[in-house]
Amino acid sequence: MRAQDKNDAGGLGVNDMAANGLSALAVRPVDRSLESVLRAKVDGKAKPPGSLGRLEDLAIRVGLMRNCVTPRVERIDLFVFAGDHGLTEEGVSSYPAGVTIAMVNTFLAGGACVNALSAAANIDIHVVDAGVAADLPPHPDLIDAKIRHGSRNAAREPALTHDEVRAALTRGGSLVGKAIDKGADAIAIGEMGIGNTASSSLIMHRLIPAPLAECIGVGAGQDDVGLARKRAAIERAAHRSAATDPFEVLSEFGGCEIAMMAGAVLGAAARQRPVLVDGFIASAAALAAVRLQPAALDYCIFAHRSAERGHARLLQALGAEPLLDLGMRLGEGSGAALAGPLLRAAARLLTDVADLADILAAAEA
Amino acid sequence: MRAQDKNDAGGLGVNDMAANGLSALAVRPVDRSLESVLRAKVDGKAKPPGSLGRLEDLAIRVGLMRNCVTPRVERIDLFVFAGDHGLTEEGVSSYPAGVTIAMVNTFLAGGACVNALSAAANIDIHVVDAGVAADLPPHPDLIDAKIRHGSRNAAREPALTHDEVRAALTRGGSLVGKAIDKGADAIAIGEMGIGNTASSSLIMHRLIPAPLAECIGVGAGQDDVGLARKRAAIERAAHRSAATDPFEVLSEFGGCEIAMMAGAVLGAAARQRPVLVDGFIASAAALAAVRLQPAALDYCIFAHRSAERGHARLLQALGAEPLLDLGMRLGEGSGAALAGPLLRAAARLLTDVADLADILAAAEA
Repeated sequence: MRAQDKNDAGGLGVNDMAANGLSALAVRPVDRSLESVLRAKVDGKAKPPGSLGRLEDLAIRVGLMRNCVTPRVERIDLFVFAGDHGLTEEGVSSYPAGVTIAMVNTFLAGGACVNALSAAANIDIHVVDAGVAADLPPHPDLIDAKIRHGSRNAAREPALTHDEVRAALTRGGSLVGKAIDKGADAIAIGEMGIGNTASSSLIMHRLIPAPLAECIGVGAGQDDVGLARKRAAIERAAHRSAATDPFEVLSEFGGCEIAMMAGAVLGAAARQRPVLVDGFIASAAALAAVRLQPAALDYCIFAHRSAERGHARLLQALGAEPLLDLGMRLGEGSGAALAGPLLRAAARLLTDVADLADILAAAEA
Repeated sequence: MRAQDKNDAGGLGVNDMAANGLSALAVRPVDRSLESVLRAKVDGKAKPPGSLGRLEDLAIRVGLMRNCVTPRVERIDLFVFAGDHGLTEEGVSSYPAGVTIAMVNTFLAGGACVNALSAAANIDIHVVDAGVAADLPPHPDLIDAKIRHGSRNAAREPALTHDEVRAALTRGGSLVGKAIDKGADAIAIGEMGIGNTASSSLIMHRLIPAPLAECIGVGAGQDDVGLARKRAAIERAAHRSAATDPFEVLSEFGGCEIAMMAGAVLGAAARQRPVLVDGFIASAAALAAVRLQPAALDYCIFAHRSAERGHARLLQALGAEPLLDLGMRLGEGSGAALAGPLLRAAARLLTDVADLADILAAAEA
């Protein structure tokens, strides 16, 4: 994919996407002419105008995404993409890489935090092997979309080939498309992958762009020595490649699960569905998706502000104000699961609430 | 109720509550010796320690409330208390007082915002006539707990008699107690009452205490002229009585629905159940409850920070950090309904999530 393929908005045009075999992921912007209609409809509901604050704005956004004044959002499908990272060879994480596999097994057994939070929110989870560094035994609830056994070590070589990035994007979009075909009203994305905050820091650094120092945090947890080691490894990777094109950046620094999440964002947006983006790593994937197809941003709902250093800056770069701010930094889709009910509630403002004029008329009668 | 009945903690002792016929509303503080056990349990779950931020703190609080390391919070009952206010005679609201009745009918018809938000959150609503200024026709979903046809005009005389306050507190506690008997794991409180931000401003002013100017906002909506009128009426009421005792303050300035919400807070706390407090007015009721029984604060979960001026100050006075901050200012229990799923999710951290040690052992195996 060539940088000169970029369209005026900075991303890739429909023809460019087609030339790269990604035409199913071409995203049309929402039709903003509907915005005033939606605003008037929300203002006319049984409440003082503006009294539901940001929930009203979200309702209007969902109406725009669905191009409809009565958008229905009941079923939310959460995809948890798992992948390993060659960068862990450099000691970027305080956890052993084997934790990725262990957590995938925990997701499948229903014992992880995201299982608990999704159950509380009545959200179904799909666990996706995007690139775990082991052959996982078949499981009825595990989707095998493996690109490779973990990304390569980005401190030494490109993490993924162009073909691998293309496959990850395509599979992410395809998985989401199938869920929509089966009745999902909205998509949520989360991830698991030891080492993937390091990969996300590099993606953010190049695609915002932002100084590396603003992009690196403690991830799942690091002492000062560990953080210094992580920072050094990230700097070696950044020094190795000057890539700034979103496709190239995913290839140089991305992980399988991050590229696949970017594809999921594009797939949901291409189908005009809301996509709830979890935390730092999911947001880095959304950033890549938005740099590939700027209109994808119209369909992204950022679930929460992670405590991971860099996330606030990343959200700011996207002009995004997340729904929740609870000091969380787990990943797995935990924040997206928590925000799911807020998305449903916002849509119901448009579908379920009576008009104020009728209430006032009744009050005067 | 005499100010000298106050106990060391500043509220009323169990004997004083009994002497006032309120022994069912006496609240025991949580047993903090369980806190370290709960913290260790949360820290041992399948996640990096602290990585679920404030959700972890909430899980621990819920465990303390239920005095149990596996607290279950599935069924949340939302009570919407409706009442009218004599202060509306002074023009404190831009909406006609008849809107209270119209909104009660809207709640019963299922067409209000709180109906939509509660449905999205799988929360059942109980609509309570605490003091609507009209005889409401019987309705299977309407709880008749009417104290009187609207409070008296607090700018001219005490809004409620002592007996009326006592009846409101008792009925609020009793309604909540019945819901708990029928299986409610947690209680949520909201309200509807034209004029009740003015009443809440007075309660907050006296019970924090805080300067009136910091307590008065636009409520459901006011232009500058309306706001000046509202402020003048509130100042007349404040000038009329110097009450600072919580029971006296409810009598002088309270509304039926506010006193009944205070009773609901005490009733939930007395039964060691979490109580989700909605916005500004519900928080003013919670403040009165906490001044009557300081230990009640242990059981209060503040749902959101309202855009109503004064709410941030009120929350600060209670040392409370709300779960949501979405610029909402509707009331009705709308914020409590949105926060309900977060409360359920927090409890599930303790009941549903596997231990990290098991995951790490599996990773090393």
